Amino acid sequence: MSDLPKFVEICEKGPREGLQIEPGPIATDRKIALIDALSETGVRQIQVCSFVNPKKVPGWADADDVVTGMRVREGVSYLPLWLNERGLMRALQYRNRLTFKDAILLSASERFIERNQNQNTEKNIAIQNRQVEVFLENGLAVDGVLIMAAFGCNFAGDIPTEHLVATVAKAIEIAEAHQCTLTRVSLNDTMAWATPDTVKRTVGAIRERWPSLRINLHFHNTRGLGLANVYAGLEMGVDSYDSSVAGLGGCPFAGHQGAAGNVCTEDVVFLCEELGVETGIDLERMIEAARLAEDIVGHPLPGSIMKGGSLARLRSAIR
Amino acid sequence: MSDLPKFVEICEKGPREGLQIEPGPIATDRKIALIDALSETGVRQIQVCSFVNPKKVPGWADADDVVTGMRVREGVSYLPLWLNERGLMRALQYRNRLTFKDAILLSASERFIERNQNQNTEKNIAIQNRQVEVFLENGLAVDGVLIMAAFGCNFAGDIPTEHLVATVAKAIEIAEAHQCTLTRVSLNDTMAWATPDTVKRTVGAIRERWPSLRINLHFHNTRGLGLANVYAGLEMGVDSYDSSVAGLGGCPFAGHQGAAGNVCTEDVVFLCEELGVETGIDLERMIEAARLAEDIVGHPLPGSIMKGGSLARLRSAIR
Repeated sequence: MSDLPKFVEICEKGPREGLQIEPGPIATDRKIALIDALSETGVRQIQVCSFVNPKKVPGWADADDVVTGMRVREGVSYLPLWLNERGLMRALQYRNRLTFKDAILLSASERFIERNQNQNTEKNIAIQNRQVEVFLENGLAVDGVLIMAAFGCNFAGDIPTEHLVATVAKAIEIAEAHQCTLTRVSLNDTMAWATPDTVKRTVGAIRERWPSLRINLHFHNTRGLGLANVYAGLEMGVDSYDSSVAGLGGCPFAGHQGAAGNVCTEDVVFLCEELGVETGIDLERMIEAARLAEDIVGHPLPGSIMKGGSLARLRSAIR
Repeated sequence: MSDLPKFVEICEKGPREGLQIEPGPIATDRKIALIDALSETGVRQIQVCSFVNPKKVPGWADADDVVTGMRVREGVSYLPLWLNERGLMRALQYRNRLTFKDAILLSASERFIERNQNQNTEKNIAIQNRQVEVFLENGLAVDGVLIMAAFGCNFAGDIPTEHLVATVAKAIEIAEAHQCTLTRVSLNDTMAWATPDTVKRTVGAIRERWPSLRINLHFHNTRGLGLANVYAGLEMGVDSYDSSVAGLGGCPFAGHQGAAGNVCTEDVVFLCEELGVETGIDLERMIEAARLAEDIVGHPLPGSIMKGGSLARLRSAIR
């Protein structure tokens, strides 16, 4: 009936996406506690912090302390976020503890780059070329591209599939100019425009042109379609997803308008388990980490399974 | 790529499912205000109240006042819920204002009937036969069956597809014993066990055996899969869904464990719109009704689109 993958790789984005948005400061040791709990769930990739201007994002002024304080577990990759060369250089100090993916960062919406980063496309391509050089100077692999606003943009509307494909082609061109081969493209639905239909269409178009390129999907749940979009991706055989423990990363239930966090990690794990797709993640441990996340932020988070309970647990109670 | 229907019929369950669960009493005129607002959205079916024992469900002690007070709009069907013959007889007093569906009520899980209604299967079948007679005595069509616990049960576990098919066969047998033909089966995922996989398998099995039987799907969002399940149903061509404005019908965000409400009506409408499937419902008006529902219950409700906003609105702001 469909082409579900056997195994799905999940990249946990909760610590980075979720903790900077909270109104009150979150103590460094609590951030570390969450990362350490996530390390014990079986998840293999965790984005742990942002190396950004502490004046602009005070919530990540303690990025260095988090990276040095967290317990690095073998087999788990810890990823930083950075937004410019200065941030990347800060992160590179910890390259014995951190993993660097996505040397290239593009946007499928030019207007988003203009509004969000105050850059035009040409200037951004120069920046990406420079970043590729920094990666190569530091012996890091240049094999991935992250594409923002991959499905739609609040400033530009729907992204035509051919425009997204052209953006991927641009990334490949940048890599090839440095004798590098991209093996991975991450499609980020930054402003929650994706629907199951556009997911299938987009994945289909990329796979038709570059069959060996591994696709990663990153959805936000602002319009409630997060898990339906993940399911559409699974139906297309996509085996790599970003998600956020407890749905950290936005305050959809705090009574104000605004973007929600990523799809919820433990809900994605539950969906995969029920479909017979392995994740390597212990669902009950991830639920515990989700409860810890709620405790840390001090308010309810949107994840469902942490409230409704897994079916595996119900089944074992019946038997 | 899939077999999406052109038009989907939505049955709004919010007033009945949602308002009885609230801890504080909700004034009759507020219930009527919500029903009246829903009547203006384009939705064609609204379940408005329960005729149940007011000692057991005090929240519906005012069922008579709601039915007589609500504004009946042409083209909209207003449905009551009842759980026994006494309740049905009370509802029948208002048959000029109400529509009666689902003469037969079965459970795919025998243990659920035992636990929930303190009946065994045999006794329940006698009750259903009696209810069919009451329908016929009152000149009502006996053409639908509602099956509870269609996908799984907290007391019995997963429902094997063949067991569900046997339950549908039992309903058809009851109808045929009274020279009636069932045209509609409503599969209720009472305890939120459905997954996109089981939805497809179940719908496929029923359709294979009874190709002309119209299937209705009723999901709860307790485990976050509500919209993914609706999407799976749409992919199978199912064109009839129950849902609840704002996701009324449970308190998943009130900090305690428990069942969530039905899938959220305006989120289902949004999904359908984005997939090019018509619902006849004005999404912005449904969002207004969702905000009214939040105002009535006095706490945030789980719907997403009422917080994140529709893409149609964003698109028109861009152009």
